[in-house]
Amino acid sequence: MAGGAMTPMLQAKTISPPVSSETPFTQGKYRVLALVFDDYETLDLHGPVEMLGHMPNTEIKLVAAKEIVRSYQGPRVVADCLTTNTYDCDLLVIPGGLGTRKLVSDSSLSQWLLAQVARSQHVFTICTGTALLAMTCVLNGRKATTNKMAFEWVRSLNANPQWQPKARWVLDGKFLTSSGVSAGTDAALFWVKHLHGEAEAKRIQTLTEYQWNDDPHNDPYAVG
Amino acid sequence: MAGGAMTPMLQAKTISPPVSSETPFTQGKYRVLALVFDDYETLDLHGPVEMLGHMPNTEIKLVAAKEIVRSYQGPRVVADCLTTNTYDCDLLVIPGGLGTRKLVSDSSLSQWLLAQVARSQHVFTICTGTALLAMTCVLNGRKATTNKMAFEWVRSLNANPQWQPKARWVLDGKFLTSSGVSAGTDAALFWVKHLHGEAEAKRIQTLTEYQWNDDPHNDPYAVG
Repeated sequence: MAGGAMTPMLQAKTISPPVSSETPFTQGKYRVLALVFDDYETLDLHGPVEMLGHMPNTEIKLVAAKEIVRSYQGPRVVADCLTTNTYDCDLLVIPGGLGTRKLVSDSSLSQWLLAQVARSQHVFTICTGTALLAMTCVLNGRKATTNKMAFEWVRSLNANPQWQPKARWVLDGKFLTSSGVSAGTDAALFWVKHLHGEAEAKRIQTLTEYQWNDDPHNDPYAVG
Repeated sequence: MAGGAMTPMLQAKTISPPVSSETPFTQGKYRVLALVFDDYETLDLHGPVEMLGHMPNTEIKLVAAKEIVRSYQGPRVVADCLTTNTYDCDLLVIPGGLGTRKLVSDSSLSQWLLAQVARSQHVFTICTGTALLAMTCVLNGRKATTNKMAFEWVRSLNANPQWQPKARWVLDGKFLTSSGVSAGTDAALFWVKHLHGEAEAKRIQTLTEYQWNDDPHNDPYAVG
């Protein structure tokens, strides 16, 4: 690892995902599972929930270490399932926020994430949610981005991803990573377009009266 | 009332607000009280929560008819207090969403809203949340706006407000009303600017990597 970065706490090969037959999802739905934790950043989660939630035949469930979780802004959400298990899903969503500052040192969360990523068709991080994912090493060697205000902090945790200082979002393999807070909403509409085409993305954009930055290279908060 | 609109169910003069000494707020905070109900639209609520929640010395609480409320997109929030009382607050936030289609006929909610508005220094509606407020008649004669896709429906409920077909948001007296879904996030940053000045709004804009439409007359979804 280069540049004096700390050693990530987990190596991918050390963990085997637990097997569970439980699911919070209805059969046949596009399954979006979003991780929440105390002091998650409100819009990191709810911007993507807004856009993804208008996709056809989609179900969104929250997963957390406890039943009730408080956002950094105050309002609380209810988890639909717990991190005592992992779950098959189509899209794992990982928001950021001040809560990640502590959680990047939480080895049980990293272990859960690594196992959960293995059961997720795709993974979508927003803001410093990318830091949580980077601690599992699954982003090593891949292009990824994160909050531009916290960019150096995230890079200091794991220098091995190909960190992109100018990108509203980046898709590399199964991993969609986005820049700070609001960028997640733009990236979510990109994901709608990726799955369902531009007309569906535009339908949801219009429905929500959203002013979509649909160009991942148009990053007004680029750094470095 | 003009144009065949239905009669709003309440006249402002018929209701006296109940008095309660209970408060969900910490003394000395800027008190934001946000109404939630089943099938509220996620971003209507959480976009403003994101921006207002970064204001200095601010506390945001949710109020609902029951303890746990489900958004249209699925995830659930926990109410901090119930509509069995009204509460002194600085800003009452009323989101919209498909849940309003039923609630505009709920006379107990309209009675609560009218009493709650009387205890709120300002009132901020997003999207079809404006329809709920319009049913109490407090917007009669005032400039107001709402979701542009649902504009005719809202106008048909009460034709007496001066409905603005081209406005991202409108401030008239104590009432800030905004257009559909995402417009609420822009209007919330306007409210930050209104209370704390442009530098504070820009600070929060940057922190959230937001691309703020800061011109209320720039309404890409204008109708009529």
